[in-house]
Amino acid sequence: MRIAIIGAGRVASQLAPALAQAGHEVVAVWSRSEPSAQLLASKTGAVPLHGSKPDFATVTAAADLYLLAVPDDAVAQVLQAAQWPAGALLAHTSGALPLGVFAAQQQVRGGVFYPLQTFSPGRVLDWSTVPLCLEADEEADLAVLEAVARSLSQRVLRVPTPARQQLHVAAVFACNFTNHLLGIADALLADAHLPADLLTPLIRETVDKALANPPFAVQTGPAVRHDASTVALHTRALGAHPAWQQLYQLLTASIQETAATRPQA
Amino acid sequence: MRIAIIGAGRVASQLAPALAQAGHEVVAVWSRSEPSAQLLASKTGAVPLHGSKPDFATVTAAADLYLLAVPDDAVAQVLQAAQWPAGALLAHTSGALPLGVFAAQQQVRGGVFYPLQTFSPGRVLDWSTVPLCLEADEEADLAVLEAVARSLSQRVLRVPTPARQQLHVAAVFACNFTNHLLGIADALLADAHLPADLLTPLIRETVDKALANPPFAVQTGPAVRHDASTVALHTRALGAHPAWQQLYQLLTASIQETAATRPQA
Repeated sequence: MRIAIIGAGRVASQLAPALAQAGHEVVAVWSRSEPSAQLLASKTGAVPLHGSKPDFATVTAAADLYLLAVPDDAVAQVLQAAQWPAGALLAHTSGALPLGVFAAQQQVRGGVFYPLQTFSPGRVLDWSTVPLCLEADEEADLAVLEAVARSLSQRVLRVPTPARQQLHVAAVFACNFTNHLLGIADALLADAHLPADLLTPLIRETVDKALANPPFAVQTGPAVRHDASTVALHTRALGAHPAWQQLYQLLTASIQETAATRPQA
Repeated sequence: MRIAIIGAGRVASQLAPALAQAGHEVVAVWSRSEPSAQLLASKTGAVPLHGSKPDFATVTAAADLYLLAVPDDAVAQVLQAAQWPAGALLAHTSGALPLGVFAAQQQVRGGVFYPLQTFSPGRVLDWSTVPLCLEADEEADLAVLEAVARSLSQRVLRVPTPARQQLHVAAVFACNFTNHLLGIADALLADAHLPADLLTPLIRETVDKALANPPFAVQTGPAVRHDASTVALHTRALGAHPAWQQLYQLLTASIQETAATRPQA
């Protein structure tokens, strides 16, 4: 397939080389910034495009797919500002944006190509395990998205907008919020002058257990035991960090509510 | 060493067989319930003791170490109710209880033997990686605790009460609270009729990244990007779960506060 990449950030920087390696022709890479466009284009043999009003209609031959890997709040703007070949298939990579974001653009076809993963510079990803969640109105467009997706990953699903948005909320809990809790734990260890890797076996076992069981069914700790004196001790110990103290109390209450209201927990 | 185990719950059930396998003689296992005491004692060749007032002074020959693996709120009660050999070395296994819990018992020596791990029935633990956090007033008692600890684990530390309590708070964030977030994610997937293992690669990558970096430095997601429209969308999507909606908002605020106040984040 001939694929154009719109964006040169975290997702685009991992996606473009992976697509090239899977045998696709990355025909163009666009970024608002010229150095970013050139850097990523040079890694994939693509034509670099930059500036606020890219012309995909005349600068390169038409691509089979235009993948929009820009921040959510930039998608509508890029859609409007750029020139697209008539009838081009565009797909965004967002967990949150509806398929309907393309509705205002009469001259293009719209789709979704959402990789369910967290992207950070310098991390090497195994794309074959990354779930790719696809959506389009037309079966022919889904077929293009599926062909590209299956060349990268063994996990390809059709997920309509409402389920994808729910999945995105779940991903925020499982990834972004979990990372924040691990950051709080890391900071508390540093405060106590304890080695940063002391919690590693506990974190590994926690995740192994949560992935092997319904997590609510294997909940442990002072909250689910209703160990009020330990909860009080911990609350006092967090006195220097009011935001974390408030989180401690709310998470404790949520664990206790879950145990009380979900029979399987 | 000759070791007596007080308790037959999650910690005791994993600790007693591990100690026997490491070559120690488990001389007695006590539980309030007779079947629990007999079951665990039979696995380790120990004498089972039960009832509310166990007599460790006359029922068995003196042990080198009496390990208290009972719930935190039962420790003081068991300490008082039981008969201990004069000068016996007792150690509790709690993250939260101070060493001072033994101060009221003039006739025994007190210590702490805290395994930093989460214990659930049926999980096979690799004790060699479990950090064992020790504390005692007397160097001779620490030497006994260290000898037992090193026979189980490669990670043995002396950790005084205040640092251990801080570590315990950190462990609640890294383990119990993380598990709860993974449970919420799991429940949201089930609500959307999505496969339960869809988040597995994301969770694995999140934890791998958080263990390879200071977690605050690799925070991703709508909160740290100040992506207000996605945060608003997610908040609406959680309308059916007010407790999780409140958690979402507080975690989002905490991530944003951390990014604003910690230069390394």
